[in-house]
Amino acid sequence: MSRTWKIGVAGLGTVGGGLVKYLADHPGFAPAGGQAVVTGVSARSRSRPRDFDVSAYAWFDDPVLLASSPETDIFVELIGGSDGPAKASVEAALSLGKPVVTANKALIAEHGAELAALAEANGAPLLFEAAVMGGTPAVKMLREAMVGDEVISVAGILNGTCNYILTEMESRERAFADVLAEAQAKGYAEADPTMDIGGFDAAHKITILAALAFGCAPNYAAAEIEGVENVELLDIRLARELGYRIRLTASAEKVGGGVSVRVHPALAPIAHPLSQTVGATNALFIKGVRIPRIFIQGPGAGEGPTAAACCADIADVMTGAVRPVFQKPADQLSAPERIGVEHQTGRAYLRLMIKDEAGALAAVTETLAESGVSIDSFLQKPVEDQGRAPIVLTTHEVSEVKIMAAAARLAALPQVLDTPRLIRIARP
Amino acid sequence: MSRTWKIGVAGLGTVGGGLVKYLADHPGFAPAGGQAVVTGVSARSRSRPRDFDVSAYAWFDDPVLLASSPETDIFVELIGGSDGPAKASVEAALSLGKPVVTANKALIAEHGAELAALAEANGAPLLFEAAVMGGTPAVKMLREAMVGDEVISVAGILNGTCNYILTEMESRERAFADVLAEAQAKGYAEADPTMDIGGFDAAHKITILAALAFGCAPNYAAAEIEGVENVELLDIRLARELGYRIRLTASAEKVGGGVSVRVHPALAPIAHPLSQTVGATNALFIKGVRIPRIFIQGPGAGEGPTAAACCADIADVMTGAVRPVFQKPADQLSAPERIGVEHQTGRAYLRLMIKDEAGALAAVTETLAESGVSIDSFLQKPVEDQGRAPIVLTTHEVSEVKIMAAAARLAALPQVLDTPRLIRIARP
Repeated sequence: MSRTWKIGVAGLGTVGGGLVKYLADHPGFAPAGGQAVVTGVSARSRSRPRDFDVSAYAWFDDPVLLASSPETDIFVELIGGSDGPAKASVEAALSLGKPVVTANKALIAEHGAELAALAEANGAPLLFEAAVMGGTPAVKMLREAMVGDEVISVAGILNGTCNYILTEMESRERAFADVLAEAQAKGYAEADPTMDIGGFDAAHKITILAALAFGCAPNYAAAEIEGVENVELLDIRLARELGYRIRLTASAEKVGGGVSVRVHPALAPIAHPLSQTVGATNALFIKGVRIPRIFIQGPGAGEGPTAAACCADIADVMTGAVRPVFQKPADQLSAPERIGVEHQTGRAYLRLMIKDEAGALAAVTETLAESGVSIDSFLQKPVEDQGRAPIVLTTHEVSEVKIMAAAARLAALPQVLDTPRLIRIARP
Repeated sequence: MSRTWKIGVAGLGTVGGGLVKYLADHPGFAPAGGQAVVTGVSARSRSRPRDFDVSAYAWFDDPVLLASSPETDIFVELIGGSDGPAKASVEAALSLGKPVVTANKALIAEHGAELAALAEANGAPLLFEAAVMGGTPAVKMLREAMVGDEVISVAGILNGTCNYILTEMESRERAFADVLAEAQAKGYAEADPTMDIGGFDAAHKITILAALAFGCAPNYAAAEIEGVENVELLDIRLARELGYRIRLTASAEKVGGGVSVRVHPALAPIAHPLSQTVGATNALFIKGVRIPRIFIQGPGAGEGPTAAACCADIADVMTGAVRPVFQKPADQLSAPERIGVEHQTGRAYLRLMIKDEAGALAAVTETLAESGVSIDSFLQKPVEDQGRAPIVLTTHEVSEVKIMAAAARLAALPQVLDTPRLIRIARP
């Protein structure tokens, strides 16, 4: 139990720097009875100013060489990106049977199955707790704690930037673009925010959780993705009047023999734990056959939590544990296909902007009735400027094909201005 | 990875029966690539009616013999009780280097350090996920996921029976004794409910979590324990008027160089996740230096969740993982001493019943002022029957010595009827 593990860290950004500093400050880090010491590092620039002394470690310009070095016992990949040096260096380490710890959600979501096969063929652990929900151990829960149950669904808030924006829009009554610009100025959102606000980051994460929950290959290509770019303050206000908040939800569940993996805005009742998850916090529900419901909430990003998650993975490597990367041996994993919208049902929020004229409301309600959409609640608001009146309704459980068809028919009505806004209502 | 692990299960109550049935129904249970098969069982009565066929397994009247049998690879102890056959059989298994999985909170809370020493000396894992929060992996989180951080505190709701009773008292406006009697009739509470309502069950659990969180020996004797027996409907009503619910909280935190481990009723704001935890559900906050706050909520008991937790432990054994039972090697564990009340501070709720006569209120407020207790809110209710008027107040942060002394002085006032009721307010 007194073995020393030499750690090679590739990528010295926020998380990588945090990890190097933590292990330097905690020379006795030995939760499994061994010892972890960073010996080698790699990053794009050696001379970039950092708040720790990079000269204390062997420097590698090429992360593949760090991964392959005989001095590296555990390779920690914090470069990012689904391909390029991140993938090459992880493959190099696994090929040599070296354990890999990574925070790279894109890499695991897009190449998880082939990397799992490589890891298992070479007897090397491949761990990625930090890839999902930062310091909140969602991966460990699904990979280890739920093995004595069958998971029915996982659903939650997996992108802190989007949740921060939605929270700010509601609490400060500000438009999406304003809040995004401010978040960028403060460094809470990336200069190119596409991965976050487009839902792609959350889709990477739910793809990974789906693979762990259902013992399948991660299949990012099968994820259905809608971001928060089109969430308007008007809808946040109207949702609140109806007793809801809007959240970007990521969910995976068994539907029609397959696995549905989706990211989209959704309404959750104000008292619901997802609505009560505010700011950059992440949250996840896990529902099982025997364990009815577990809820977990915590930080989703940040230097401290993410580096702590990497440390937990390093400790797991030190225990010598051997288990499949995604619940089943990699050669038994199949990739779930995309679930067609014809298999999806749920409740929905539909908001229209209609002309303030006689018969407009009747045209809308007739169209809904003809479309077979059953209304749960209905709200017409006073006329806005220029003779426009917002109408909002929530439906009972309805097939998505039917409600989307109804929205299209409504959009074609001469009395309906703008494109109708359709937002799903989260399952209880 | 194709090894078959033969499981011996001692104790065939709800959890033991559930585990045996689950493994019989899932012959391929192999989350770590091996296979788990129950081969031997032990219980007090072989002939007792059960919903599975006990003759399919080798029968042992004596669990120690089952634990020692060469046919037992993993010993699962579900007998219960801190001593007697539970302890003897666990010791027998560990002495022979056999991995042990147990749901026995009393055993671990009261003898965890010596069992950890025995386990580590013989290279045998000792796992007890099912001992705390049933199917909700609190043990795994503290033992494995938080190793890259320093825990500051853990606090939550660890006894489902008490939470069910408090929830029912509030929602149905019924007295403690009525709800308890009904819960016993329905089988939600034991015939002898002392362990639950007295807070002892929660104290066992928080003692275990404290050891995992802070890397110390479990020291049940140092836990400060107050149950829910004295929670009156009047206080639940008054707390609600002030915006709180009453919960039985279990907490462990570093105080004055030691570790404070306490179980007591506490007020939590109605919107707080602990107040929103209703019925038999359990919940836990983990606060760390780098991971600011994780919240986890889920089932705390029941056949399905608890047996699933045992399965997860069995899977962990199958991975071959080796790590200390309580964060540090057993020979480095020290037992935390009981923290004296002089080190404790917090906010408090104080409810008095005073005589409906001139000067009574003045006597109370003067006594509080003289005691140096600073009031946050104050509420006098209309006179009840027989000239009795309830007064309720909440304090700002105050030392517990001071507020307890104030309560004692108030109790001695001739205008104060009954014993003042002092309930702590949970930290945010």
